[in-house]
Amino acid sequence: MKKSPEFSLIQQYFHTLTTNREDVIVGIGDDCAVLNNPQDTYTAISIDTLVQGIHFFADVDPYRLGIKALAVNLSDLAAMGAEPAWFTLALTLPEINDEWLKQFSAGLAHIAKQHQIQLVGGDTTRGPLTITIQVHGHLAKENIPQRNAAQTADLICVTGCLGDAAAGLKYRLGQLDTALLNDGDIEYLLQRLEMPTPRNQIGQQLMGKAHAAIDVSDGLLADLNHILSASNKGAKLNVSALPISSVLQKLPVEQVTQLALTGGDDYELCFTATADNVARLQQQFPEMIHVIGEITEDKGMKYQNAQGEWQAFSEIKAGYDHFA
Amino acid sequence: MKKSPEFSLIQQYFHTLTTNREDVIVGIGDDCAVLNNPQDTYTAISIDTLVQGIHFFADVDPYRLGIKALAVNLSDLAAMGAEPAWFTLALTLPEINDEWLKQFSAGLAHIAKQHQIQLVGGDTTRGPLTITIQVHGHLAKENIPQRNAAQTADLICVTGCLGDAAAGLKYRLGQLDTALLNDGDIEYLLQRLEMPTPRNQIGQQLMGKAHAAIDVSDGLLADLNHILSASNKGAKLNVSALPISSVLQKLPVEQVTQLALTGGDDYELCFTATADNVARLQQQFPEMIHVIGEITEDKGMKYQNAQGEWQAFSEIKAGYDHFA
Repeated sequence: MKKSPEFSLIQQYFHTLTTNREDVIVGIGDDCAVLNNPQDTYTAISIDTLVQGIHFFADVDPYRLGIKALAVNLSDLAAMGAEPAWFTLALTLPEINDEWLKQFSAGLAHIAKQHQIQLVGGDTTRGPLTITIQVHGHLAKENIPQRNAAQTADLICVTGCLGDAAAGLKYRLGQLDTALLNDGDIEYLLQRLEMPTPRNQIGQQLMGKAHAAIDVSDGLLADLNHILSASNKGAKLNVSALPISSVLQKLPVEQVTQLALTGGDDYELCFTATADNVARLQQQFPEMIHVIGEITEDKGMKYQNAQGEWQAFSEIKAGYDHFA
Repeated sequence: MKKSPEFSLIQQYFHTLTTNREDVIVGIGDDCAVLNNPQDTYTAISIDTLVQGIHFFADVDPYRLGIKALAVNLSDLAAMGAEPAWFTLALTLPEINDEWLKQFSAGLAHIAKQHQIQLVGGDTTRGPLTITIQVHGHLAKENIPQRNAAQTADLICVTGCLGDAAAGLKYRLGQLDTALLNDGDIEYLLQRLEMPTPRNQIGQQLMGKAHAAIDVSDGLLADLNHILSASNKGAKLNVSALPISSVLQKLPVEQVTQLALTGGDDYELCFTATADNVARLQQQFPEMIHVIGEITEDKGMKYQNAQGEWQAFSEIKAGYDHFA
């Protein structure tokens, strides 16, 4: 299927904006893109859709939306330890809005160049605003960090900070008490929500070092729970070790802990590894890798209460559920 | 990005319905699917979106829609000569409708099994009904039929019959005079519209035999024009040689010619090849390969009028244009 006007649309706004990789044999403009896989690698792929009104607000800055649309997919490659290579874009638009397309494609191009990932194909159709991106990455054939590979006594780590994006969302919904925050703080939280930084550099170093990995998109408890279920393990969490940004530290500690445990959209990595390998990663990425707990043979997730007793989380929040 | 309820949705309806290929290392359920590419092949990919109200009617049979959604993508692989391997599905649904999902996934599974293509990943989100599928195929590293490779004196061929799907669409729109058709005829036309047969068997035999190829999705003139523009050639068409089904032959010849030349959605292949190679392909696929013209050094598309004179098509219709 091809539709000439849309192809020229795609070409006009997107074609020249991304890297020209040598492994792209046929790019945009034929029935298929043709791609050359490196020898002795697997291909890792992931596809995600963002729908207006569900995943983003109608008035979101289109430049930022372009960044986010690719970032959430790059984050899946990061969680698998894959090196970004190619992506496709299926864009459904209510109308051709030149300014919107310019801004959106500029944001997309910005993050694509950062990660050396090339747009190789797409489809543009008319309809309610929906953005589907599929990313393709290269992956060595061994030591792929998967959800089901956590080992008892592994340390549980997260990158960056947790809860910022959820606080940004609360702000957008008019539900955040901003008395203690300045304009710069709010802009920081919004950037974390609207332009997440996928952790691909760290993700590519997890091969052979992390046992299990996932990206934190639905909230730490929900995503860590995917690892625990798949690995048939449990966890002890040190809630006071959760990495919290200096901005979020200005808010009440209980609210912040809740945001860090259950807030989605952070796109940090959560992984499990031996203490030795965690130390190696912490040397490679100073200040970025935070130990927040330990994998246990006993099922369930526990935390230490004020009395120093290990207590089960009463409820694992399932994160953001589109159909709930 | 992952959203547990949707993943289980995908798994519930789609997971067990398609082939289990050995080259799928990690399938549905992790951050990425992990795929093993055969040695010495390229990967061909294509992504297409179908939007309700634009590409299909709201009341279309969901089983047929499942078939069509994958068929239009398989057709792109066919035009590139690629062997189908894997696909992903990004499905946006206004609500969870059990019966609709059962039927849609059954149609999808039916055609997926026919073509030995496996569902390896997906995303299900809430929103207006939109179906995006990306297909992946394997491709030998030489003699890929591309749009820009037509040679002067190549014969122009099409598979199957042309115009049926466009007549089916006319019927659905209440614009087809059905006085000369019976119920079986109408069902045939609707099947050609709603459950096209992608020509992958023929497509895979085009390697090394066809110079240029494309699938007929926007209409013969529009799609052949893509080949001519990319190859910097022209064409002489023998309009009386256009392959017309026995059903369509019941309609007035002028209307039928118009449908065959400009109607979209047939998903037949149009390719150019030397006379020797056309003869070989005709032997391999009896009754399926029709010679309809010849590539010329002179630009433009011409046909022979009633007086036997070569005349330019007054207008190359651009096919179905979503934004026009």
